[in-house]
Amino acid sequence: MIKVSIITIGDELLIGQVIDTNSAFIAKEMNKAGFLISRRVAVGDDYLAIRSALDEEKKYADIILITGGLGPTNDDITKSLLCEYFGGKMIVNQAVYAHLQNIFENILNKPFTNRNKKQAEVPDVCKVIENKKGTAPGMFFEETINGVNKIFVSMPGVPFEMKTMMVDDVIPMLQQKFLTTPISHRTLLCAGVGESTVADMLLGFENDLPNNVKLAYLPSYGMLRLRLTGIDNDAEKNNLILDNLFSSLQGLVNEFIVSNEDLPMENVLGNLLKQNNETVCTAESCTGGFMAHLFTSIQGASSFYDGSVVSYSYKAKEDLLQVQKSTLKSQGAVSEMVVREMAAGALKNIGSTYTIAVSGIMGPSGGLPDKPLGTVWICVGNNQKLIVQKFYFRFDRQVNIRLTAMNAFIMLRKFIIEK
Amino acid sequence: MIKVSIITIGDELLIGQVIDTNSAFIAKEMNKAGFLISRRVAVGDDYLAIRSALDEEKKYADIILITGGLGPTNDDITKSLLCEYFGGKMIVNQAVYAHLQNIFENILNKPFTNRNKKQAEVPDVCKVIENKKGTAPGMFFEETINGVNKIFVSMPGVPFEMKTMMVDDVIPMLQQKFLTTPISHRTLLCAGVGESTVADMLLGFENDLPNNVKLAYLPSYGMLRLRLTGIDNDAEKNNLILDNLFSSLQGLVNEFIVSNEDLPMENVLGNLLKQNNETVCTAESCTGGFMAHLFTSIQGASSFYDGSVVSYSYKAKEDLLQVQKSTLKSQGAVSEMVVREMAAGALKNIGSTYTIAVSGIMGPSGGLPDKPLGTVWICVGNNQKLIVQKFYFRFDRQVNIRLTAMNAFIMLRKFIIEK
Repeated sequence: MIKVSIITIGDELLIGQVIDTNSAFIAKEMNKAGFLISRRVAVGDDYLAIRSALDEEKKYADIILITGGLGPTNDDITKSLLCEYFGGKMIVNQAVYAHLQNIFENILNKPFTNRNKKQAEVPDVCKVIENKKGTAPGMFFEETINGVNKIFVSMPGVPFEMKTMMVDDVIPMLQQKFLTTPISHRTLLCAGVGESTVADMLLGFENDLPNNVKLAYLPSYGMLRLRLTGIDNDAEKNNLILDNLFSSLQGLVNEFIVSNEDLPMENVLGNLLKQNNETVCTAESCTGGFMAHLFTSIQGASSFYDGSVVSYSYKAKEDLLQVQKSTLKSQGAVSEMVVREMAAGALKNIGSTYTIAVSGIMGPSGGLPDKPLGTVWICVGNNQKLIVQKFYFRFDRQVNIRLTAMNAFIMLRKFIIEK
Repeated sequence: MIKVSIITIGDELLIGQVIDTNSAFIAKEMNKAGFLISRRVAVGDDYLAIRSALDEEKKYADIILITGGLGPTNDDITKSLLCEYFGGKMIVNQAVYAHLQNIFENILNKPFTNRNKKQAEVPDVCKVIENKKGTAPGMFFEETINGVNKIFVSMPGVPFEMKTMMVDDVIPMLQQKFLTTPISHRTLLCAGVGESTVADMLLGFENDLPNNVKLAYLPSYGMLRLRLTGIDNDAEKNNLILDNLFSSLQGLVNEFIVSNEDLPMENVLGNLLKQNNETVCTAESCTGGFMAHLFTSIQGASSFYDGSVVSYSYKAKEDLLQVQKSTLKSQGAVSEMVVREMAAGALKNIGSTYTIAVSGIMGPSGGLPDKPLGTVWICVGNNQKLIVQKFYFRFDRQVNIRLTAMNAFIMLRKFIIEK
């Protein structure tokens, strides 16, 4: 099996100023292409730390993918370090120079300064990879250590630049060099059940799994993903075995299944709506637009999603959703009556097939004796019927917001399927 | 300087199913407490990979913080592995047992199964750390290698469980063991200028920096963070030097400064509004609730944020914001006239001091000959005046949404300050 390490470079990763989303993207794409990531290492913009990470990872891996540290400023030292590491010297690459000149003079309409021109310099011992989305070029190095060929690829840290380079160039280049081992996954999305309960239900199933198939439990925000991973040189056999096991697995936890694809919950719901030619709208108090954001992050969301009223203030609830002032006064904003009126108002004003309305106390403050922190009312339904459920979430603001959205989506999916 | 490594454990990190947000949190909190993270490593739920990561990181670091792999299912092997690694044996911890029993029987109202009971077993060679937010206990190990004391702390991978444990217990325990070196940061948030331009402006400043102060450039979504980091055993001296340098830095890039605190742009705007006792509302087409989500992620947002109309459909634009059908027909939804009408409708119906309205084509499809993909109209203003600007973003859907929100926030901040 070919082994891959990822090295991410940047002080911002070690002081927590930036969350590393690049590694997850790289891992996912490499996996699809048949490469398994065995280690990921992050180091700062520090000469010795980067060098020792290179020395270390080439012991473990055949392919070392590096991101970050390629910017035009002095804190970025990756390019010159790699040049030295592989014993090269810096030369101007004419194609990169022309690309940079075009970006600055024709696209950005900014002066093409000496600092920018320096980005066209690359080590003479690498294959240059074009950066279609930005300025810093990628670099592909090969080294033979004790007769074994090792590949090092350096990519920019800016996510959309790295992503394009990875998919368009790096993966095809790696596939030319290596014979990959087929890896396949099957993922089941469940709701309404805990990890331990499912593990007990699957005791026999897990014990009988062949050696090259692994079962993983991934609990997340009221849901549980069950993932089967199979690795086999025979891709067809691997898929056949996984399909059989996946179908047994589905039989065993049938009552809890929300989807047999590895999709976010908003996509599961979106697909169901599209398939039925129906739409949904939202009326959001405590989730503050997060449900709308999840739906509209999906390409083509307008085919099933009409919009949202984020009614943070009382006035917005009254004017945009016709919640009665008297209801707000007698019941408070976090109440069954208010979410029912919000839902009815959204259906009337936005005119979708279904709606979701939520109101709650997300924290960290704002709890009341009869409505503790984390109290949430969720209403889902259509013009014929509205159903309401009360929840108590006990986490921090961000987690409570996400849990509210997920539980609302699960409720609406159930409503649509059972109606 | 005390060195710290983070080891995160879990196959989901290596196949890209999960983004590692824990490391950023740990790094930030450790930094505040005076510890510098030098390396971060991620490995799978694999016996040999975990063991070699432990062997490796203890060469580099004095403190090794470990997250993940502590669940009750068979794929989680961290606890038994650590027990063996430190030569201990598993014993039932009575306090953990009582805590688990209480969670299952009194909070979750679920059966307290044998699998759950097993979570009360811990190695007899560690100090147990209570998990206030969940079931898997934390573990604190000490090992003396060639006379040097090394600390290993194992925490659960579930973010809110780890966060509470880290802040309440782990950091105080580490501060008792080590004398930390003061690290300080000063961060300046700029907008409307590129990294290279600023770097050229700061050439002299950067060359004159003392050895223990570093300047970093962090471009992100139309903004640029400039971060000064100083490390010095004398905390007072360190802060004094940084304050002086920070004030020079501010003088040099004054025209581009948005904030002299390390805050997200929505907090900068929120603070400005709160300070003026004013509020804002949003009318969102292409951002689909993302601006609302950013504002309402801030604790206490209701003091400056009233709500949003996410008008994805034409009907929502007409009914909730009184955009004229004739305008939509003659100009299209992505037009100056429509964002002006959306802004006016939001001000009228939600009644805030200011509003932001946006409409655009986020992609990946939907571009037109006269309105290419990435075309966005942004309108900001109040009842007296509305200003409008057209943008072209050339990235993917998620990036375009974020860029739209950031540029809208920058526009409104400018409007408020200059009005």
